[in-house]
Amino acid sequence: MFVYEYRVEGRLKDILIVDCGIGFPDSQMYGVDLLIPDVRYLGDKKNKIRGLVFTHGHDDHIGGIPYVFNKIGKPKMWGTKLTSAFANLKLKESKIQEKVQPVTFDTQLSIGVFRVSFVRMTHSIPDASNLVIKTPVGTIYHGSDFKFDFSPLDDKLPEIAKINEVGKSGVRLALIDCLGSERRGFTPSEQIVGETIEKELSHASGKFIFTTTSSNISRIQLAIEKAIASGRSIAFFGRSIDQNVEEALKLGYMRFSREHIIRDRDLTKLPVSKQFLIVAGSQGQPDSALARIANDRHRYVHIAATDTVMFSADAIPGNEEDVEELIEQIYRKGARVSYSGIMEDLHVSGHGSQGDQMLLVSALGADYIWPIGGTYRHMMQFRRLVMELGYDTKHILIPQDGAKIDISRQGECVTAGHVTLENIMIDGLGVGDVRDIVLRDRQTIALEGIVVIVVPVVQATGRLAGEPDIISRGFVYMKESGDLIGRMKHVVRTSMKLKKGRLMNWQFVKKEISEQTAEFVSKETGRYPLIVPVVVEV
Amino acid sequence: MFVYEYRVEGRLKDILIVDCGIGFPDSQMYGVDLLIPDVRYLGDKKNKIRGLVFTHGHDDHIGGIPYVFNKIGKPKMWGTKLTSAFANLKLKESKIQEKVQPVTFDTQLSIGVFRVSFVRMTHSIPDASNLVIKTPVGTIYHGSDFKFDFSPLDDKLPEIAKINEVGKSGVRLALIDCLGSERRGFTPSEQIVGETIEKELSHASGKFIFTTTSSNISRIQLAIEKAIASGRSIAFFGRSIDQNVEEALKLGYMRFSREHIIRDRDLTKLPVSKQFLIVAGSQGQPDSALARIANDRHRYVHIAATDTVMFSADAIPGNEEDVEELIEQIYRKGARVSYSGIMEDLHVSGHGSQGDQMLLVSALGADYIWPIGGTYRHMMQFRRLVMELGYDTKHILIPQDGAKIDISRQGECVTAGHVTLENIMIDGLGVGDVRDIVLRDRQTIALEGIVVIVVPVVQATGRLAGEPDIISRGFVYMKESGDLIGRMKHVVRTSMKLKKGRLMNWQFVKKEISEQTAEFVSKETGRYPLIVPVVVEV
Repeated sequence: MFVYEYRVEGRLKDILIVDCGIGFPDSQMYGVDLLIPDVRYLGDKKNKIRGLVFTHGHDDHIGGIPYVFNKIGKPKMWGTKLTSAFANLKLKESKIQEKVQPVTFDTQLSIGVFRVSFVRMTHSIPDASNLVIKTPVGTIYHGSDFKFDFSPLDDKLPEIAKINEVGKSGVRLALIDCLGSERRGFTPSEQIVGETIEKELSHASGKFIFTTTSSNISRIQLAIEKAIASGRSIAFFGRSIDQNVEEALKLGYMRFSREHIIRDRDLTKLPVSKQFLIVAGSQGQPDSALARIANDRHRYVHIAATDTVMFSADAIPGNEEDVEELIEQIYRKGARVSYSGIMEDLHVSGHGSQGDQMLLVSALGADYIWPIGGTYRHMMQFRRLVMELGYDTKHILIPQDGAKIDISRQGECVTAGHVTLENIMIDGLGVGDVRDIVLRDRQTIALEGIVVIVVPVVQATGRLAGEPDIISRGFVYMKESGDLIGRMKHVVRTSMKLKKGRLMNWQFVKKEISEQTAEFVSKETGRYPLIVPVVVEV
Repeated sequence: MFVYEYRVEGRLKDILIVDCGIGFPDSQMYGVDLLIPDVRYLGDKKNKIRGLVFTHGHDDHIGGIPYVFNKIGKPKMWGTKLTSAFANLKLKESKIQEKVQPVTFDTQLSIGVFRVSFVRMTHSIPDASNLVIKTPVGTIYHGSDFKFDFSPLDDKLPEIAKINEVGKSGVRLALIDCLGSERRGFTPSEQIVGETIEKELSHASGKFIFTTTSSNISRIQLAIEKAIASGRSIAFFGRSIDQNVEEALKLGYMRFSREHIIRDRDLTKLPVSKQFLIVAGSQGQPDSALARIANDRHRYVHIAATDTVMFSADAIPGNEEDVEELIEQIYRKGARVSYSGIMEDLHVSGHGSQGDQMLLVSALGADYIWPIGGTYRHMMQFRRLVMELGYDTKHILIPQDGAKIDISRQGECVTAGHVTLENIMIDGLGVGDVRDIVLRDRQTIALEGIVVIVVPVVQATGRLAGEPDIISRGFVYMKESGDLIGRMKHVVRTSMKLKKGRLMNWQFVKKEISEQTAEFVSKETGRYPLIVPVVVEV
């Protein structure tokens, strides 16, 4: 989420928000489903928010909106046709009445003091846009996710002319998607993948199972075209694919005749050589359709030795192991598997490489450049590139997450202050109720286990009401650890230091029990479980 | 670990063991440090074990020996010079007196009925060998980790002539390292990496920090040579690197003058442009020297903006996220980082690719082929290759872990039976005391948290002795969840179904508490914590 503020003599006048995505937890965020923007900074500025613009329909740009829409005062929202349709699906699911207004690439919006217009860009979803934001202190180019694909599947070219035009009229600051800054040259066209599908289809005698990211509408359209050309019928598996295809078809972003589509339950009526399955789960997600098919847990589909399974997506960092495990399972069924480990051109990135990035930077000729959408190493790599174009480090901003960039009326851009941001974590139905302390406990227990020590005490007298009890989970195999547990109980008893049979200071006693048990356990087992002493009053 | 048994009319005569390595836990094996071979099958056959041969000195081939040496009856052990030296370091650390006997590549061993001789192979460690095992039912070629490098750093070529010779005399079964079966062509020579180090050194103005696998003696020797040639002095960081370099130097597997080595604490006496640091931690291990340097937790070394850090190793599957995080941290210091994401030829594999594999298979012309050292998908990919050489599936064995391969006197090889194997997990000081149930608990708690419900009961009467108490960790942020906890307590109380104020059947009551609390919690929060009801007698 990007927040543009307009201030006059320090007084806040207008706020424009661009995008509101979700993030994915790293592997240390045990049990967290997803992350959403931390909008607390906007809490007392709601009445200055004049609107929100989405650049394209991917979850990392629209997926956070149901969670924060009310918290940011239900702003007006805009996006291109497919973008708004996908965002509206999410709002509807969360029972939010308000809708994102669809715009065309010719629309000019006035959002407070900001004049926003759209530049068509190519990306791995149709209708992706960059934004030109005219402000009293100059023009800002908001260059979110893009690549230059001059043979896109929908024949809608990136609007280079518009980019050149805005470049000529002067750009103060350009934000540029830097995720691909480690790759040389240009990102190839989506057409490449079509040729690979054709080649794989020509070898396939059994079912053809195709998997990709379910928001990658263009790729799915491509797969459908190749399937039809080879005389196969198509079935979809996975709720997100169903939904996205339905919506894209309705809006005209996909084009195929429904006669080629077959329902999952009717698949068996076709010979396997006529089946083409488009299946969700390319990231190895354990509950996805593909994982269920690979594990023989699917109602209609099983993998046979004559089948071909094509992965048309690269593993997102952190998912490699899940994807490999899934590939391994499919191999065990004897099927042919195509994935990037053994084959090229199964997938092309939606993000520009060094060539795409330098082309955009050169065309814009902005005073200042700000790499966005990557981690620090992508930004640093991007900076190295842009310096080859003649920029110095002062004119390339490398802000941290939460940084504020100040653009003065004189045209200078500097990092000025910082908003403290936290990871707002979603786990199950809870929003933000998993805090860092909860995660830390999960991490400790995951690696070392937990030991709960229960000390029953008579409330009135402070005397022990029975023997301390020890419960552990994830620590040692209890059935064979009787001796260890017995000695732990002894440590607990001696650590309690009763005064005339009474527990005097419970906080102190708890601390003693924790410390002495931890010391004993680490010496005996080399482990550091979470130790939780509990005094139960009876 | 491979076990070769010789039987006459079903009666076991002799056992030869090849290798005894450690494995690495996958990301679901929370808190497990490493895996060792499950040798229970050998428990009642100790007196038939005639010896153990190590093929090379990598941890996944020697690292398990301290844990199982006594359990397999302290067999005699052999290995090539560096192999035995590295294995003996491990035995000594574990205070085991017995030693691995060093052999040369001309040694012929008689181990029971087995005649074992050694074939020098190239791999990412010197002195790597394949084994020729002559038996009454034919010759077995044990082709563990190898590639064909005809310009190895130590100038010791793979012994192709020996391979051809054994091929000519007839090979019944060849076990072949299949890990690289997804890569086309031949694996490049180690020399390639030397050129990359030179190039990187020529750009470096500050400290040069080089990291690779600490057992990769050849790579470290290469780095040292390039460092000396560029006029830099060398310091080592990391216990395993220190130890391996010391041992390899002593035995003549590394060669450099000690005048070029500088102690860590003396580094600051040199200008940064004269420093070359060889540092352990290329897999992003959180406690490694490199991680501590990157986090400013190292006593002598900090990263400056002018430094260069070169990763000369690829991330092992499962470590990608840790490595990326480490690279990110180094970037934040402003240093230049070379890693395989942005640069080629930083690392070459020690395992052969398709070309190497087909060369070995062709030279041997074995009756049967058995791909080893890879996962199922590597085996299947390997099978496809070998079938192009004219083998049929009957002559390519694809056994599961624990399978027994039977070679008859008539020369037929078939899978015959199966030994049940478990993951023997090492956690801290414990060997095997983390069982599947312990891991399952760790997994559940890691993702969902734990809720302990304590019910104090008067032992004599079966009556409640006080209010149930609820303790949770890793579940919700307790401080802000008072309401939820209160309602959980209510659910606990109503689920107890007291009969005249008494708990009648504790097992039944515990089950009721678990089930009803779980139902309530999942409905309220969408989570499924581990619920542990505890009845405390007072």
